[in-house]
Amino acid sequence: MTEFFNVLPPDEARALLLAHIRPLDERETSPTAEALGRVTAAPVIAPHPLPAFRRSAMDGYAVRAADTHGASESLPAFLRVVGEVGMGRAADVALRAGEAALVHTGGMIPDTADAVVPVEHTQHVGGETAGFSHEIEVLRAVAVGQHVIQVGEDVAAGAEVLPAGHRLRPQDLGGLLALGLTMVTVIRRPRVAILATGDEVVPPEAAPGPGQIRDINSYTIAGQVLAVGGVPQLRGIIPDDLDALRAAAAAALVESDMVVITAGSSVSARDVTVQVIAGLGEPGVLFHGVATRPGKPTIVGAAAGKPLLGLPGNPVSAVIQFDMFGGPALYRLQGLAGAPPRPALWARLAQNVPSESGREDYVPARLEQTADGLLAVPVFGKSNLIYTLVGADGLVVVPLNRAGLMAGDLVEVRLI
Amino acid sequence: MTEFFNVLPPDEARALLLAHIRPLDERETSPTAEALGRVTAAPVIAPHPLPAFRRSAMDGYAVRAADTHGASESLPAFLRVVGEVGMGRAADVALRAGEAALVHTGGMIPDTADAVVPVEHTQHVGGETAGFSHEIEVLRAVAVGQHVIQVGEDVAAGAEVLPAGHRLRPQDLGGLLALGLTMVTVIRRPRVAILATGDEVVPPEAAPGPGQIRDINSYTIAGQVLAVGGVPQLRGIIPDDLDALRAAAAAALVESDMVVITAGSSVSARDVTVQVIAGLGEPGVLFHGVATRPGKPTIVGAAAGKPLLGLPGNPVSAVIQFDMFGGPALYRLQGLAGAPPRPALWARLAQNVPSESGREDYVPARLEQTADGLLAVPVFGKSNLIYTLVGADGLVVVPLNRAGLMAGDLVEVRLI
Repeated sequence: MTEFFNVLPPDEARALLLAHIRPLDERETSPTAEALGRVTAAPVIAPHPLPAFRRSAMDGYAVRAADTHGASESLPAFLRVVGEVGMGRAADVALRAGEAALVHTGGMIPDTADAVVPVEHTQHVGGETAGFSHEIEVLRAVAVGQHVIQVGEDVAAGAEVLPAGHRLRPQDLGGLLALGLTMVTVIRRPRVAILATGDEVVPPEAAPGPGQIRDINSYTIAGQVLAVGGVPQLRGIIPDDLDALRAAAAAALVESDMVVITAGSSVSARDVTVQVIAGLGEPGVLFHGVATRPGKPTIVGAAAGKPLLGLPGNPVSAVIQFDMFGGPALYRLQGLAGAPPRPALWARLAQNVPSESGREDYVPARLEQTADGLLAVPVFGKSNLIYTLVGADGLVVVPLNRAGLMAGDLVEVRLI
Repeated sequence: MTEFFNVLPPDEARALLLAHIRPLDERETSPTAEALGRVTAAPVIAPHPLPAFRRSAMDGYAVRAADTHGASESLPAFLRVVGEVGMGRAADVALRAGEAALVHTGGMIPDTADAVVPVEHTQHVGGETAGFSHEIEVLRAVAVGQHVIQVGEDVAAGAEVLPAGHRLRPQDLGGLLALGLTMVTVIRRPRVAILATGDEVVPPEAAPGPGQIRDINSYTIAGQVLAVGGVPQLRGIIPDDLDALRAAAAAALVESDMVVITAGSSVSARDVTVQVIAGLGEPGVLFHGVATRPGKPTIVGAAAGKPLLGLPGNPVSAVIQFDMFGGPALYRLQGLAGAPPRPALWARLAQNVPSESGREDYVPARLEQTADGLLAVPVFGKSNLIYTLVGADGLVVVPLNRAGLMAGDLVEVRLI
């Protein structure tokens, strides 16, 4: 019996797992427009400055700032408008002293101009005129560079615009495409083998006989894998047998970057999982047991830099523990330090929630919008009932050092 | 000129838009295992109870609770173990008074038993024995039903397990599959036509000439559409011309459920967008202007129940305003009331952020983990520079009624 049962605080447990993961080193080239959620494999360098030409930040007039010196409502500066810079056109208007050119927001600034006077700070002399050979009054002085977006003000040529290990968001795709970077080098998506075990488990499409239940953990975990950028590989239901599970896990490990086993719920089924994970490679089992509820009997290991998880068969624990360990592991495999900070909602707790100091609890809760703000209503039920999670919007976190929470407390709710 | 410029507070603006959207009424059948993120088109009813048989919540012995009445460490009850219920097997052990059956967590309970004694509250008489015709001492009494998961305790037959308009999460897929519901009826994914305008705009793969810039709004918005379950349809770059844009938008409206136009940045380009949106159908423009920064000049409308957005050409405003209006609109099209509550992080602000009362500001900020917790460091820069968003982890929200935030304030940061 190779079991060692050392219950770790969740943060420490997660850090230990992450320290044993070797990030993937396989790169792929993806069209930038299709790379949402992918992770950069190398720093991205700006091939040219952005913007590549001086642009107007306002609708108005490109001017030489010196010509507006001292201008005010009572003592306007007079300028002669000698042209217009069309959108998407070169600014080929040459300004001499006392001259201005009509420009539009985003338009190019003539070389001979150094500022823009917003249209609302000007006035036509003699009202509206056709053509551009007319005069304007400038009612407010502008400084050199005012209302002008300089070349490279967004990004300088040669700047690192994204580091390696950055998960691409919509704005990142925009930033790359603005620079003409229509292809991006990303890390291959990690493959996650999911093995269900349990002699009582049948596929969802089967009609369970007496004592049998349908496999759901394979599918909840597959959904969670997809959500953090992995590729789930369902390896089916393995008999509760040491040799069978060992063979299936070893085969899965060769073809994937991470192995998740959902153990049967009994102590003996968990023992089998511990032995299998211990035998898959070095270092094997990192810890068995986390100071959380639900999810205490989670088994976490690694083999040659690949994370290994033995999750409780209980579907609620499996979802919550994959969230705690599987998600961060997948981010790490893709080259991130771990899971990014986790946003949450804050709500008033509707009723007391008991816990124990020294254990982090996750209590499924429904959120209700009330006149006094969000209310978190715990969904009680035995922890192995999947519909406690289906009926919940999130998990109320009872911190490690708290012996419980009181009705009315402002609590953190992590959406799930 | 059909422009009307009434600047609304953002919540009011969003509510007005949502009230004019007609949710899609087209259903599709999807394999449940592939329905992550899809939205239910009808309530889902449980075809049978879950669990379908009485299950043990512990490793232990199925017993008749009356036989353990008064049992204690000093005065244990003696029971004869007459069999074992194998995992995934029918519990065909018949218990008579004074008898028990070995059961495993998740295993079936014999009809003749009504409680489970956990193994840790028992003791073998005469130590370990092979076979099952041996006696145990029960050291603690159990009540009827204790450690037993009753038929239907997770879900009763005929119960509504999911309402219509529910976005499917991993645990929801699990809940459906547990009931053998391998197919689920969902709303068709809404198609979102995205039209870029601007004579200065060229496709990302083109080499921009003097005064030209690459289209990035089409791609940032496409990413945002995907993230909330829509199907982006890029309709290309339309010349800044009323007739051309009118024709392109009218064609897009026929083939899609929502139309997004990113206007050129100049006032005249925005005027064209207003006229186009006003002419697409009833009610046309709902409002033009929102009390936010960035994003004040956003144009929001509807035609025959389909949302219409005219976003600023400025890429930062476009991303933020799509997030404010486009996301909720897409949820509503799929039958949700609107966007679900938005999780956030709370961080200490690293420096003062000026604002104006009566306006909600979104200030891009980078998050830094410090010994004192998260620090939000504003990324300042002109609001039209996409790399202010690329360099940010989220947006610091300056509430409508605040004239600014101070360094050290605990602030809400919405991840973007």
